[in-house]
Order: sequence, then C-alpha cells, then structure tokens
Amino acid sequence: MTDPLTRIEEYRSQFSALANKAYFNYGGQGPLPQQALEAIAQSYRDIQQLGPFSGQTNAWIVREATATREAIAVELGVPPHTITLTENVSVGCNIVLWGLPWQAGDGILITDCEHPSIVAAVRELQRRFRLEVTVCPLRETLNRGNPVEVLAQHLTSHTRLIVLSHILWNTGQVLPLDRLVRVCHDWGAQSMHSRKAKVLVDAAQSVGVLPLKLARSDVDFYAFTGHKWWCGPEGLGGLYISSEAATSLHPTFIGWRGIEVNETGEPIRFKPDGRVFEVATSAYPLYAGLRSAIAVHHQWGTAEERYQKICDRSKLLWEKLQNFPEVHCLRTSPPECGLVSFQLSSNPEERTKLHRELVKFLEREQQVMVRTILNPNCVRACVHYFTTDREIEQLAIGIDRFLRQF
Amino acid sequence: MTDPLTRIEEYRSQFSALANKAYFNYGGQGPLPQQALEAIAQSYRDIQQLGPFSGQTNAWIVREATATREAIAVELGVPPHTITLTENVSVGCNIVLWGLPWQAGDGILITDCEHPSIVAAVRELQRRFRLEVTVCPLRETLNRGNPVEVLAQHLTSHTRLIVLSHILWNTGQVLPLDRLVRVCHDWGAQSMHSRKAKVLVDAAQSVGVLPLKLARSDVDFYAFTGHKWWCGPEGLGGLYISSEAATSLHPTFIGWRGIEVNETGEPIRFKPDGRVFEVATSAYPLYAGLRSAIAVHHQWGTAEERYQKICDRSKLLWEKLQNFPEVHCLRTSPPECGLVSFQLSSNPEERTKLHRELVKFLEREQQVMVRTILNPNCVRACVHYFTTDREIEQLAIGIDRFLRQF
Repeated sequence: MTDPLTRIEEYRSQFSALANKAYFNYGGQGPLPQQALEAIAQSYRDIQQLGPFSGQTNAWIVREATATREAIAVELGVPPHTITLTENVSVGCNIVLWGLPWQAGDGILITDCEHPSIVAAVRELQRRFRLEVTVCPLRETLNRGNPVEVLAQHLTSHTRLIVLSHILWNTGQVLPLDRLVRVCHDWGAQSMHSRKAKVLVDAAQSVGVLPLKLARSDVDFYAFTGHKWWCGPEGLGGLYISSEAATSLHPTFIGWRGIEVNETGEPIRFKPDGRVFEVATSAYPLYAGLRSAIAVHHQWGTAEERYQKICDRSKLLWEKLQNFPEVHCLRTSPPECGLVSFQLSSNPEERTKLHRELVKFLEREQQVMVRTILNPNCVRACVHYFTTDREIEQLAIGIDRFLRQF
Repeated sequence: MTDPLTRIEEYRSQFSALANKAYFNYGGQGPLPQQALEAIAQSYRDIQQLGPFSGQTNAWIVREATATREAIAVELGVPPHTITLTENVSVGCNIVLWGLPWQAGDGILITDCEHPSIVAAVRELQRRFRLEVTVCPLRETLNRGNPVEVLAQHLTSHTRLIVLSHILWNTGQVLPLDRLVRVCHDWGAQSMHSRKAKVLVDAAQSVGVLPLKLARSDVDFYAFTGHKWWCGPEGLGGLYISSEAATSLHPTFIGWRGIEVNETGEPIRFKPDGRVFEVATSAYPLYAGLRSAIAVHHQWGTAEERYQKICDRSKLLWEKLQNFPEVHCLRTSPPECGLVSFQLSSNPEERTKLHRELVKFLEREQQVMVRTILNPNCVRACVHYFTTDREIEQLAIGIDRFLRQF
C-alpha cells in the first residue's frame, strides 16, 4: 500500500499547473488535468479525420454534446434534458435574466455579494424594462444572523426573481439554498400576483465543491462553469433549468442549435429541452476535456468525500492564518467550503494597495497564487481537496515574509 | 524552383483534414492547419505554466485578445477597437439584434436567403417587441435583376434594420454590399424618422473569401466566424461595429469582460470599445489558433490573389458540372465566390431525398464531402483557393457514379 503522501503527490502530478507553484486560485480557474488536455487534443484529431464538416462529424458533435450534458447532469443530480451547455457562468445567468417575461415595475432581489458580471447585467435589464432592483444585505450574515430571514424581509409583492450565489464568491459563505428557495417560492405563492418568484443561482463557486442533488431542491435556475472547481477547460459551462421554470423562459440569443427546421429549411419550433438556449458552433473539443476532468475527480473519491476534504484543508489554512496578528480572517469560525478570505490589518485606505502588493509578492517571489477581492476588501485563497499541507505552509511562509518587509 | 503541383501539395499537407478526403465544406467549417493546432496546444501549456489563474495569466489573456482583435481588424480593414470577439456568427448577429433600442412597430427587412439561425432570432425579437418583419426576395436576383433595386423597393418608413448576407450561403450570390448599404442609409436619412436604418451583415461566407476594406464602406454591423473560410478553430468569431453604429447599440448579455469596476468592485461603466460585448471566460487558447490560421493564408498570397484563385477553382467546378445533363447549377454563369450550388434533375418531391443520398454516397463511398441545403433545395460544394483539380475531378467522378446507380 502506497503511503498517503506519495499517493497525493502522484495524484497531483496529473495537473501540470501544480508542478511549479503553490496554487490557491481554484475559484478563478482550476488546473487542467493532463488527461483532459489529451482528450481535447484527441477531439481535434477526430474532427479533422472525420470532417471537419461532414455527416460523420455532425453525428460525432451530437454524441459529444449529449454525453457532456449527461455527465454534468449526473454531478448535479438532475435529468440531462434540463442541462444547457454554455460558454461560462455569466452566459448562463444572462440566458435567464433576458429570457423571463418582464413587465415594467417587476422586481429583482439581488444579494449584496454577487459578482460584478451579474450586477451589471441586472442593472442593464432594470434600465431597459424599468424594473425595481433591491439589494439584500446578506454579507452581514457571514458570522451571525440568518440569511433566510434577511432575504425574506426583502421580498415584496413585486419580486419576480431572486438572484443569489450558492457559495458567496467573496466571503465563502455557503447559503442554505433549499431553505432560501422555499422562502422565495412560498412568498410568490402567497402574493396577489399569479406569477411566482423564481430563483437564479450563480453556482460558480459551488459546482465541483458541494455534493449536489438539485432535483430534490426546488431551485429554478442554476448557472455554473466547468473551469473552476471541476478543473475543466476554460470556455465551457452550463445552466440547469427546472422543468417547471423552463415553461416561462424564452430563448434570447438564438441560433441553429436551439431550433428545428422543416423540409424547406424554415425554423418551425424551438428544441424541447435545454438545447434551446445553445446558440451555434462552439469549441466542441472542450466537451471531452470537461468529461475527462470530472472523471479525474471520481478517481479520488465521492462528492461527499471530496467536500469533506476541502473543508478539512480550508480549516487547516484558516487555523494557520489565526497565528498572524496582522491577518484578519473574514470568518470567525472555520470555512464551510474552499474559500478562505482574509484582510491585512491596516487603515481601510491603504488596504487595497497592501492586498495588491501581497498578491504580487506571493506570485512573483514565492510562486504562490492567490487573488484580491474588492468587496469586501480582502485576499482570497482557495483550497481544493488535493491542496497539500506543504502548499498551505508555503502560503503561510509567504505571508510571513511579506509582513516582515514592513 | 518547385513546380506548382508539388508546391500546392506541400502547402495542403499543413491541413491534416485534407489527407484522407476531397473536401468541399469550407462554408461549413474549414480544415484546421497543423500550426494552428500547435498554437492552441502551446497556449494551453502557457496557461498551465503561468497560472491557470494568476496576474501573469491575466496579462497574457489581455495580450492574446488584443493581438487577435488586431489580426482580425487588419483582415477586415478596420481599426481594432471596432472588433468584438464572439463565439460564432450567430452570437454576433444576436448582439446586434437584441442591442438596438426597439420600439413597437419598428421594422426589420430581411432577405429571403438568410440562415435559419438569424431568421429564428429575428422572429423571437418580432414577437417580444411587436416589430414588423418584411422579407425581401433577393433569391430571384441570382442570375438576373438587381438586388439593390429589389431591396430599395422593400424599405419603408418603419425600417430600422436591414439584415442581409454579404455572400448568400445557399446560392453563393455575392451582394453589392457598398451599394446596398448606401441605399439603406440614404433611405433612412430621407425618412421622416430621425433614427437611421442600419445594416447588419451575416458575413459567415464572405470573411476569408472576399478582400475586405470595411472602413471604406459604411456598413454598420458585420458578424463573422473564424472557423469557416479562415480555417480557424470552431468556437471563435467576431463582430465589427462601426464607430457611428456603436453609439446606438447597448450590450445585452453582459459580464466582467465588458465592464469597468471602481475601487470597491462596483460596475461603473461599460468598456468604451468592442470589448463591451464580450461576456466572460472563453476558450482563450483558440485565439492563437485563429491568428495562426490567418497567418497560413498570408503565406500563400494576398487576399486579392486568394479570391481570384477561389473564383478560378469554382469556375472549373461549375464547368465540370455543366457536363452532366442531370445536374443543374443554380447559377447560369461561373460563380463569384467559392460556393457552387446545384440540383439534381428530379421532381421536386423526390429531390430532397435524392440530394441527401448523393451527399451520403459521396461521403461514405468516395470520401468526398459536400452538403445539402434545403432552401433552395440543392447540394452545395465549396472550393477554396487550395482546392485541387484532382479534388474537383473526384467530385465529378463521384457524382457520375451516383447517377449511374439509377
């Protein structure tokens, strides 16, 4: 039997990115496993061998897309027909935002911890359709308070859509999704309006981290990407739409992949499943890459085992950070996911600059990759289930060296 | 000095897809040159080496995207800030369709030869904003008549957008773009409405075929892809928006790539150039692949030389097809581009089936790739500047064998 340390180093050797650095940016982009890269290269060869445009290639593309929606569906615990392949999380969110039947005065409730991508999209939607946008202060519930209650207090009879993240990208708070969805749906059912409030989830930080059984939840829309915690190739993500929510969503960006044509080439209807929101030609070779990346994680263990290990790793990092009087972790207790956000002690005016300097120093001088977040002003380190004690130690040493400069 | 035949075979050996077939589907997807595939593979290595998510990778991505917009801009004869990188032609068209400030009753004029992708998008736009959509019969002008006059006859005081292709994907007709744009703009200027009519061009079949100097034309929107005649990787295209047209276009699908944030991470404005319509994370390794594919074409000759050679090749194919009494070319004179569309003599009811059988027979039995088109009902063969006499002969032999079966 191989000892655990050798085993994890062997496992990590599948990720070429991990060879020359201590890596803590999984929430930005995960390292691509070598076998995923090879699957992509093989797909390029297959396409050129069979086509690139031919009857055989077209059938190959359909098979690849189907297999990829199926592989994703298994991970999310939903049927494959509810999955749309997208380029990234933002596209998934935009499909939902622009596809709902808005009326002037309708309300959107969005948390104060959403990504600027989504905030900007919601604002443009507000401008165009004269919607009411309310910001719900969930950030303050990181260490105390109840996010479900806070959200419930901000629902109004106008609320048609609630936009929230399953894991807040800035603070790493894991929201109680099922309970939040229930509150939103119950509220909608009670309101005088017949149209129910729906929930759009930015799942950028939760897919590949949390064990998911979305079919058992009532969530309406769940937008995610393959290139973060799943360690798939950049440029491929997806969107889950519940069968019920699908009935009220129209496609906005439309192309041949979402439509059916008759014998004279006339578009006659939209595809009856998640494909309706897929537009046109994509980087198909990525499909095998993502499936391969997902398969790598299965080698290591179940979703539950991986999530436990992520929590174990982030607890270790969180504890290490407690040793620095100059470092303030946003969470007062160990994290519930792989995101560990912290601030350096300083007056708020200098903090932005200091955080930037720390991140640069760590990358250039220590080969340690973390990132800054602007709201709240912090540095974010992400650990995955295969993050090692040694990497965590390297990060701690790097922070220590940076602090000694002052 | 190498003889021309050896030279072209050497040149073609850069495209692995051409090794095992006679290829006539450039209008569907072009074969990827080996060096483009290597550039993609190198990009994947660079990203893993530097990151995948780090300060260095982020700077690398900005450089790659900038270099790619610049390379595209040179080919189109426009300034780089007018270029948006997109996933494909359809996305480019959708950016324009959904980004204009529509009012109920506004009119869209679309030709009767547009791709089902765009037709379906225009219909959904019509439904949502209660627009008037008029179809302009340009197909009948393939061999006689004047498309400019026909278009002019269909403009009304409500027309806000004209949707047309530079090269019609089905018949291969090259439309006189500059004159068409002038008619549309002059019409708009004369109308009682202050808002000018704008022109959206589906350039799927013209980019990589026609020598372009778009800055000299007045065209408003020009949507294209890299994976057809440019032979770039699938999943990367672009959109040109003239500086004047940009002032009236709003972003619809929105993400971090199109916005600027302040020191607290708040989105404060949209990017002031084509980047505003780029959404979020894409398959960045494709950028080097497309630039590499474009560079390959430069090895062979100028855009004018390549276009002349395409016409020379399509004339040869068109002439060969004249030898079959059972084959009817849609054009009564040699083509003006690489698209050669033809029908088999048969009653119209059987034609669809017959064309499908021909395409299947050619692919399976003869390793010759062509495709069917449903409107008008025909088979389309595409020739590029590097299509050989031998390939054209193989297609002719294949058709001959198919016809002898009956």
